[in-house]
Amino acid sequence: MTQLEAARQGRQTPEMQEVARREGLPVETIQEGLARGVVVLPANAVRKKARPAGIGQGLTIKVNANIGTSSDHVDLEEEWTKLRICVDAGADTVMDLSTGGDLPHILRTMLSRSPLPIGTVPIYQAAVETIREKGALVHLTADKLFEVIEEQAREGVDFVTVHCGVTLSSLERLKRQGRVTDIVSRGGAFLATWMVYHGKENPLFEQYDRLLELARRYDLTLSLGDGLRPGCLADATDRAQVQELIHLGELRAAALAAGVQVMIEGPGHVPLNQVEANIQLQKRLCEDAPFYVLGPLVTDIAAGHDHIACAIGGALAGMAGADFLCYVTPSEHLKLPTPEDVREGIMAARIAAHAADLARGNARAWERDRAMAQARKELDWEKQISLCLDPEKARKFRNERPPQESEVCTMCGPFCAIKLVREFLKNP
Amino acid sequence: MTQLEAARQGRQTPEMQEVARREGLPVETIQEGLARGVVVLPANAVRKKARPAGIGQGLTIKVNANIGTSSDHVDLEEEWTKLRICVDAGADTVMDLSTGGDLPHILRTMLSRSPLPIGTVPIYQAAVETIREKGALVHLTADKLFEVIEEQAREGVDFVTVHCGVTLSSLERLKRQGRVTDIVSRGGAFLATWMVYHGKENPLFEQYDRLLELARRYDLTLSLGDGLRPGCLADATDRAQVQELIHLGELRAAALAAGVQVMIEGPGHVPLNQVEANIQLQKRLCEDAPFYVLGPLVTDIAAGHDHIACAIGGALAGMAGADFLCYVTPSEHLKLPTPEDVREGIMAARIAAHAADLARGNARAWERDRAMAQARKELDWEKQISLCLDPEKARKFRNERPPQESEVCTMCGPFCAIKLVREFLKNP
Repeated sequence: MTQLEAARQGRQTPEMQEVARREGLPVETIQEGLARGVVVLPANAVRKKARPAGIGQGLTIKVNANIGTSSDHVDLEEEWTKLRICVDAGADTVMDLSTGGDLPHILRTMLSRSPLPIGTVPIYQAAVETIREKGALVHLTADKLFEVIEEQAREGVDFVTVHCGVTLSSLERLKRQGRVTDIVSRGGAFLATWMVYHGKENPLFEQYDRLLELARRYDLTLSLGDGLRPGCLADATDRAQVQELIHLGELRAAALAAGVQVMIEGPGHVPLNQVEANIQLQKRLCEDAPFYVLGPLVTDIAAGHDHIACAIGGALAGMAGADFLCYVTPSEHLKLPTPEDVREGIMAARIAAHAADLARGNARAWERDRAMAQARKELDWEKQISLCLDPEKARKFRNERPPQESEVCTMCGPFCAIKLVREFLKNP
Repeated sequence: MTQLEAARQGRQTPEMQEVARREGLPVETIQEGLARGVVVLPANAVRKKARPAGIGQGLTIKVNANIGTSSDHVDLEEEWTKLRICVDAGADTVMDLSTGGDLPHILRTMLSRSPLPIGTVPIYQAAVETIREKGALVHLTADKLFEVIEEQAREGVDFVTVHCGVTLSSLERLKRQGRVTDIVSRGGAFLATWMVYHGKENPLFEQYDRLLELARRYDLTLSLGDGLRPGCLADATDRAQVQELIHLGELRAAALAAGVQVMIEGPGHVPLNQVEANIQLQKRLCEDAPFYVLGPLVTDIAAGHDHIACAIGGALAGMAGADFLCYVTPSEHLKLPTPEDVREGIMAARIAAHAADLARGNARAWERDRAMAQARKELDWEKQISLCLDPEKARKFRNERPPQESEVCTMCGPFCAIKLVREFLKNP
């Protein structure tokens, strides 16, 4: 039985209870959200060892970190370091996007080591193995694709991105649209290339029932991917993107009917003034399904600092109702990220998520910021550092330039405004 | 004659022409904006050697970087390095906020070395010298304060922050409000302490005409400071802050009447959902005066990454109408920034400014992002790097993990979506 089916039957699973505890909400709220399909709780029925993350309406915004090898860079020790950083830096979930090396081995190890829910994009493994075995992507078969999905589900993957909305119809829209960057999703590009070559419909769309049956068996949460997401601001919110989103809304309804947990993926590169509209549109077309945004990046020219472009878009998206932020690292558009990039990316996304939680009036988020303000007023540096999202870096920075008086910092020294005003209030 | 007076007389100064050229706008637009007081062009009449930056309605959003010593850390070579970084990294203006060492010497050297307009907060020098000479801030006199302002104007400072809105009336509001962090502005704290000790009105408010006379003589642009800006989210947009802003609106009208260029400073720490309201409020209360925001920081707990909290707030503020973003570095709340911090802070603020320029439909901003999208489509890496806001870092990152095929990067390697789709379109 999936978490969704359990919720509908009025059952409160241990996973729901754990999520309720961590959110500080009654378990009924989690159960009702799941039953309505506005909350997902990715927790593979086979694995069931990860710390569950609730994603959706009324919950705090969650952060996902993508790690994994590429064919140009396979260094497993580095990937395990990244995984450890994901846990330590406070990511809520991790996606293994490996495309280089022994993919099943990497995923199995990731699953065994990760206390966080793990997601994948199964078409990566299906495509990479097909190219290795048969020389070209076009030899991919629907059976191979479904075999990989089942294999990964059996290993314990908690959620999968499936680009079911890349249909012949949405590709036709893409063609008529005349985009600048066409397709920038790897999964979308694999499928589109295959579809146009064979003149056939997307197997993930055509055999969607087969996917649902499999997902239900393992309680594999589907993350309906946006293979046609805009790859630049000029392509944002265009007819191809919206056509795919309409498909995803319909597919989501079918998943709910089948008892399968489902969320929706969103853009991408989006100008700041279109971010809110994108969230509204998704929430309407997909009837308040949990929304997982990949950015959005609010400019195309921030490579080297794209985690910041992503934090800006993610914060605004979160305030408007997005539920789940996929991080972007400083290396986006340039190279496979290093462990340090992973850390910076997670921190930027967590700042965005927290800023949006505050904007949405989350009581716990406000408590923490208020405690920090109080610690600042009291010039209590240990408390300030412990309340930071990144205490490690805060401590390092403060120690790099220690002040002469321990009450202040080297920015203002004895001219610290808080100290001046406080001393004055003591001895007016 | 000030730029404002010249504009009112229908004269187009070389500075207006230079700003028009750099903005890609007719010089009449700059002149009219100046005449209406919705644009400022900080350019001291004595110095006149800096590259002028136009700030205000219809212009691209500008970025200021604060540098300068503190009493705990005086390293002049480091400050000159920071100044060079400000220029290289693309700041539009620089403020010398030094409070340690030989302040007049530091400012004079900064002015002689900087091709960018320079701002100061004169009360810092007045307060620091008073404390050094007389042992305590309370011995500060109005004459000393005005002497420092005039001395700095004579040296060539282009704009000054003056906290004229910290009045007995707004301090009374602050007291009644009952804030968490009271006052976090250094200038505000100096003045408030002095005012309450002496039971006297703020000299910058009481002798505002004297300030205007002096500002007019040197064409010193006044940046009316927000000494009561919120120092934490819980204090944002409170009665004390708004009371001060009302004062600033009135003071701004008086400055315009006297032919003095003027802009308004704004918060501070502000939750994301109050950012737009703050901009609207300022634009109404101060009749579309150029708005210079110090952040806003959208959470209190991001120390070590506050440049990101600032970029989120700054981008949204810019989209809503803010004209001038003061950067924040990763060291904010922890220590005096290093040169590397300055660089990161400027880049984060530039991303925010550019994202907001895009959201406001600036044609040149869109041209650049579109060119980047085209370069990505063409897998033209040299062009991509040259179009980045930070080509230096983009090149460094790419070279750190060079791909096996020069067309792609190590993130996706041969599975690059753009490459897949492009090759397919060539040979379907």
